[in-house]
Amino acid sequence: MQFDIITIVGAGLIGGSLGLAAKQRRLARTVRGIGRKQASLERARAVGAIDEGFLEPGPALKGAGLVIFCTPVDRIADQILEYSACYSPGTLLTDAGSTKESIVAAVEGRLPAGIEFVGSHPLAGSEKRGPYFADANLFHGRLAVVTQTPRTDQAALSKTVAFWQAVGSRVKIMVPADHDHALAMTSHLPHLVAAALAGILPPDVFELTATGFRDTTRVAAGDPNLWSAIFAHNTGALLEALRPFSGRLSQFQAALEAGEWSTVESLLTQAKKVRDALGN
Amino acid sequence: MQFDIITIVGAGLIGGSLGLAAKQRRLARTVRGIGRKQASLERARAVGAIDEGFLEPGPALKGAGLVIFCTPVDRIADQILEYSACYSPGTLLTDAGSTKESIVAAVEGRLPAGIEFVGSHPLAGSEKRGPYFADANLFHGRLAVVTQTPRTDQAALSKTVAFWQAVGSRVKIMVPADHDHALAMTSHLPHLVAAALAGILPPDVFELTATGFRDTTRVAAGDPNLWSAIFAHNTGALLEALRPFSGRLSQFQAALEAGEWSTVESLLTQAKKVRDALGN
Repeated sequence: MQFDIITIVGAGLIGGSLGLAAKQRRLARTVRGIGRKQASLERARAVGAIDEGFLEPGPALKGAGLVIFCTPVDRIADQILEYSACYSPGTLLTDAGSTKESIVAAVEGRLPAGIEFVGSHPLAGSEKRGPYFADANLFHGRLAVVTQTPRTDQAALSKTVAFWQAVGSRVKIMVPADHDHALAMTSHLPHLVAAALAGILPPDVFELTATGFRDTTRVAAGDPNLWSAIFAHNTGALLEALRPFSGRLSQFQAALEAGEWSTVESLLTQAKKVRDALGN
Repeated sequence: MQFDIITIVGAGLIGGSLGLAAKQRRLARTVRGIGRKQASLERARAVGAIDEGFLEPGPALKGAGLVIFCTPVDRIADQILEYSACYSPGTLLTDAGSTKESIVAAVEGRLPAGIEFVGSHPLAGSEKRGPYFADANLFHGRLAVVTQTPRTDQAALSKTVAFWQAVGSRVKIMVPADHDHALAMTSHLPHLVAAALAGILPPDVFELTATGFRDTTRVAAGDPNLWSAIFAHNTGALLEALRPFSGRLSQFQAALEAGEWSTVESLLTQAKKVRDALGN
């Protein structure tokens, strides 16, 4: 048993899955949840993701050894700091946010003595929302990024790494800015592109979509609030990622216009090599 | 039993699936396959997709009531015409090509009397190739487009529609150019975009991809030869589809640069509505 009490802030898909995973793998005696609505907390309890639900941080954080913030990226840093008076000595804080640099920068150096924060991002999720879709194995075999800066406490870092490994993840330690630049390419740009593809589809051709269109645009079903907050946190890197993408589109366009099929084919071949390398 | 003999030209994923479906649903007494390699024909026979394999069209087409061309789009029209001397009177010809206008235009009016061609495109498939991935239920519940022009024979059209319905598909009858314009939006542009996204991914971030990137780029694993031929057949419509897509990217870019988060959110919301309307 790694912790007596783990408290999850925001018991939706990610938070709920962490609760289920922590309980199934016996990482905590009790899993608590903090939410804004009693009904959401009831749902999380009904699916077994949390043992106890709280609307207020005070009683939820008392005695917790680990607190995991699974709220939207634009809420995480504020909440971590707002709850400062409620943490018990030695509490470890982490999060599951899709962006890291601005969260880590906003929190570092602003916590009470003895309270450590280490940023995390489990690369697992779904376009679905809510604890009903929670899955104890969501993190199994997936990568979790854990962030390190010159101010990161080594013992807190080790405990955070051990936690993600305990829920089945592989762990990669990264500098926050490196994480954000990489995720701009692997997640934020694909989301923007999928939204652009879905957004321009005329209603009269909806019935002519098949699995290809549905796969390519699946992430566009994600929550617009969550994703506009992610884009706002990582605007610079996302705009940087757009540049090579637009450049590649222009290469395709020029080759199509000129009827240079060997260029089209070599662009497609190079893309296939990358995609094949990623596996299913 | 709709046909005594069905002959499938190109028994790969699509052709093999049609063979399995035709046999399982008892649409033909015998399913024959025409291929370029004995080994491929053996594989198709091993999985039960065809009963008999042929390298030459003569014996394979003799007595066939239905011939389905499941070869790459740049081969279909040539093959249909090349085999002209081999069809038995009353044979119905169709295909499974992803583009329709240039195939239909190349074939119409050039076949021997009594031989009818009706274009088809089953909106089912995969980035996978070959008869090992063939699936008798590939067409079940999917849409098949069947083309109609002023020269289309009504009896041949009805038989073609009935065939696709018999393998489980819903059928939509379209003018070839309308099909190609719609598919530029729903399939060819998404393929190009997925290839652009996969193609620019730096190797050092491969490990930071998750299901989102993999879904968004899945189709980019498709065969570069097949897809460059599809792009070549539908260049005009594909370039036309690129325009609104590039326009939407520019809207995103401008909103990101200006920090107009309400615009970003409303673009994402509109995309989500479309994607939600499409279902899984």
